[in-house]
Amino acid sequence: MKGGRFNLSDVEEARRRIRDYVYKTPLEKSIWLSGKERSVFLKLECQQPVKAFKIRGALNKLLLLSERQKSAGVAAVSSGNHGISVAYGAQLLGIRNAKIIVPETTPQSKVDKIRFYGGDVTLLGGNFDEAHEKGMAYIKESGLTCVDGWDDDPDVYAGQGTVALEILEQNPDIDTILVPVGGGGLCTGIAVAGKSQKPGLRVIPVCSEACTAWPDSVRDGRHYHEYPSAPSVCDALVGGIGCLSWSMREWLDESLTVKESFIRTATAQAVLKEKIVAEAAGAVPLAALLQYGDAIPGRNIALVISGGNVDTDLLIDIISSMKSHKE
Amino acid sequence: MKGGRFNLSDVEEARRRIRDYVYKTPLEKSIWLSGKERSVFLKLECQQPVKAFKIRGALNKLLLLSERQKSAGVAAVSSGNHGISVAYGAQLLGIRNAKIIVPETTPQSKVDKIRFYGGDVTLLGGNFDEAHEKGMAYIKESGLTCVDGWDDDPDVYAGQGTVALEILEQNPDIDTILVPVGGGGLCTGIAVAGKSQKPGLRVIPVCSEACTAWPDSVRDGRHYHEYPSAPSVCDALVGGIGCLSWSMREWLDESLTVKESFIRTATAQAVLKEKIVAEAAGAVPLAALLQYGDAIPGRNIALVISGGNVDTDLLIDIISSMKSHKE
Repeated sequence: MKGGRFNLSDVEEARRRIRDYVYKTPLEKSIWLSGKERSVFLKLECQQPVKAFKIRGALNKLLLLSERQKSAGVAAVSSGNHGISVAYGAQLLGIRNAKIIVPETTPQSKVDKIRFYGGDVTLLGGNFDEAHEKGMAYIKESGLTCVDGWDDDPDVYAGQGTVALEILEQNPDIDTILVPVGGGGLCTGIAVAGKSQKPGLRVIPVCSEACTAWPDSVRDGRHYHEYPSAPSVCDALVGGIGCLSWSMREWLDESLTVKESFIRTATAQAVLKEKIVAEAAGAVPLAALLQYGDAIPGRNIALVISGGNVDTDLLIDIISSMKSHKE
Repeated sequence: MKGGRFNLSDVEEARRRIRDYVYKTPLEKSIWLSGKERSVFLKLECQQPVKAFKIRGALNKLLLLSERQKSAGVAAVSSGNHGISVAYGAQLLGIRNAKIIVPETTPQSKVDKIRFYGGDVTLLGGNFDEAHEKGMAYIKESGLTCVDGWDDDPDVYAGQGTVALEILEQNPDIDTILVPVGGGGLCTGIAVAGKSQKPGLRVIPVCSEACTAWPDSVRDGRHYHEYPSAPSVCDALVGGIGCLSWSMREWLDESLTVKESFIRTATAQAVLKEKIVAEAAGAVPLAALLQYGDAIPGRNIALVISGGNVDTDLLIDIISSMKSHKE
């Protein structure tokens, strides 16, 4: 890797490395959102083995470990999907010790899933930033290799970027990609790989109004590594932004901020109209299209539906409220 | 083809033929249904391009047509997914004329989808059997090639059977496959291909209590080519059974009949617990597991989730009623 950064060839290598372990997920044309003026496609990362794109970065990192690192074991701090991915990837590669540290607020469904895949779950800290701080301190002393899902590991970022290679292979006409932004790993990976292959491509990060770490960092010219969040249905998108995505922010187009109410509607419509299960954080690109409509540029737009581990109670609540509206 | 029947090598040829046009859908271990005694896997045909296994048989048939047949055009009678598949397949192969005849009771969402894929929809008859009779008469006079989705076309059956080749490749330990049964094309295709490769394999057809054409035909030793149905959430499974599946019935294990209430629960749990959208007819193998539990044999069970085009109002209704139960 080059001075802590990464480039297209790192992403291409990552793709060769992880190819046998992840799905090339479908890029599906949306019947509901496409019209005469433009076509909208959904990149269904919610259909990965663990139902999240995070498996890409985690596996790229795990596949690069030495035998000694593998036998000592690995650890991750994660609000859920990255933890699931590290647990799943470790099991797949025969790494027996995978400690996953999650905030105490993590939905039970995600905790159960990490355990199902053999992860050793530790609950730590009241929110993601706190879990991260305490967890990193713990890992440093433990002798485990840290698989960081968001901050500054170029191997993880390069893994996430493989999504862009697939999108442009599946449809070279894609001119705009909307990507959920939390720490920034996914959108940075996609921008570096996508724009290196196709310079005119737009890559637009989308965040919730509940946590605007990305646009506020850009506006203030200041890296918010931790950030407060209002209550949000997108537990995977709250907290600060990563060092590497901050240092490579010039690759990204101007971000969009969406309302929580649109995210709720988008999560319901994904199920009801597209017949896919997206978690709320994975539905924010859909929410952006609902909220901004034709103000979003592009004739061939790809929405990265980044994960499918929706919280059960949330989904029941959202879909039930659609029934009340009908009545 | 051999006297109107088909065998393993026909299915293997079908697989080579359709390979570039369909997904090898995931066979995913269910966290929710697997336990210490047995593992349960979901074959996610609900993730095919048109969200239904029917694309397999339709494409195998369309790819075998002569240039003359292709330019004259094709037609199908279908309660939905087969029609969508023929429209989609025709568009993919550049066949311009694809007339899809559906019963007047077909959900609007399915009609819209057929039209989205370029199909020319004609509503005919008050139920499937009536649409079939009138539609076949029409097609006979039209000069179009009929792509029959259920009755007696061995090319279509062989296409559906490719599901079994994938399942046994993805997990050779699978000993039992549960398959929704309507006309019988899918379960017959899977049984012929699967049992030819692995003689001890069980292939269990599952039908709704609302339409027991399959078990009643077997019980009475009589082929019910048309059959009445009580109201059902499974519009894809009502009506009689096909001639070819009847003539090859010795390939199938004893069927199971599930209650509509279990099908509703299974459809909701697919979304809420498995994070997949299954149409009600596609969820009947899940319903069988809920209803019969450990009485179902096997240590490694595959459930064929045959389609994902769930009716929107039905899904809202089912999921909302789960909220009422909670309150």
